[in-house]
Amino acid sequence: MTDSKSAAPAAVARRPGKPERLVAAAMELVHQQGIERTTVAEVAKAADVPAGNVYYYVKTNDDVIAAVVEVRAQQVRTDLAAIGARQQSPKERLKSLVCKFAARSELTARYGCPLGSLRPELGKRAERPSLADAELMLALAGWAEEQFRALGRSGSRDLAFDLMAGYQGCALPASTMRDPGLLDSAACRLNERIDSL
Amino acid sequence: MTDSKSAAPAAVARRPGKPERLVAAAMELVHQQGIERTTVAEVAKAADVPAGNVYYYVKTNDDVIAAVVEVRAQQVRTDLAAIGARQQSPKERLKSLVCKFAARSELTARYGCPLGSLRPELGKRAERPSLADAELMLALAGWAEEQFRALGRSGSRDLAFDLMAGYQGCALPASTMRDPGLLDSAACRLNERIDSL
Repeated sequence: MTDSKSAAPAAVARRPGKPERLVAAAMELVHQQGIERTTVAEVAKAADVPAGNVYYYVKTNDDVIAAVVEVRAQQVRTDLAAIGARQQSPKERLKSLVCKFAARSELTARYGCPLGSLRPELGKRAERPSLADAELMLALAGWAEEQFRALGRSGSRDLAFDLMAGYQGCALPASTMRDPGLLDSAACRLNERIDSL
Repeated sequence: MTDSKSAAPAAVARRPGKPERLVAAAMELVHQQGIERTTVAEVAKAADVPAGNVYYYVKTNDDVIAAVVEVRAQQVRTDLAAIGARQQSPKERLKSLVCKFAARSELTARYGCPLGSLRPELGKRAERPSLADAELMLALAGWAEEQFRALGRSGSRDLAFDLMAGYQGCALPASTMRDPGLLDSAACRLNERIDSL
């Protein structure tokens, strides 16, 4: 039995720190609203970080975007490493990637692909993509290319781009129609294509 | 022989009117910079329409966006009607559409797909897509579906979405890498897939 006085510090201790809360809020808001519509003040509010305090962590919108891109790239690396550790066969690895995509069909149909929908706004902000931005977009394609190559397929780079395009391209009509079913059925067809290799 | 005095009125007469200049400037700026970064004042400046005059034609950014979406939708309808008039065979029609895409690979690699890159920003602005927005995204897929159906293909809706996705999805890595070649080779593979049906 704990009284409310002793429970409170434990609850406070479990709460993520301000930097983590800011990044989590930034990722959600940028996905929902886009880069241009998301302000530092909004991120601070959503993260429950006092306005006078937030500039210690992020100063400009560019800082917010850089953090979002970096964390997305880190998530991609972690996901790919986990798939690589769990699955030995290149086909199963590719299908696990498709599964990863399909797991977020609902969110993608609502707000667009969390990776793909960053790209147009990033592309319109900068003359050249940043290293982190390019890595984010190309890490997945590069990894898929490796798997196709391990399958002994010629044109593995094209196959990799077609795999990515087959899903990310469907995010556009799916988010127009708010229809996750379009993404689920695209994922099924991609799995069939992988199986038929 | 004409002197400069008599040539001047002819040159003025050939210049498009203010509404046309505003729409053309809005389309170019929105493609290059995105919706959120494009202001009415910038559109007016690019269109060479006096700032005091522009609000007679467009009052808000929403007016600018509505005009861009409407003109893009109109261009899609015109393109599809022209293809339909020129080509009788569904395969040739589909390949003509791919050609249309490929013709703008350079611009797409620089600024993203003029249609596809609108979608994420439109989706993040509104709870539900507007009719014009939905039409813009779905007219092409609906038309492609009709062609696949005319070829007697089952799953013609899926084939249509895959065709669109195969190109639009490649616009993301192509604009990340500023590489139109990725789009050209995606177009080749789509044409091969159409030929193999």
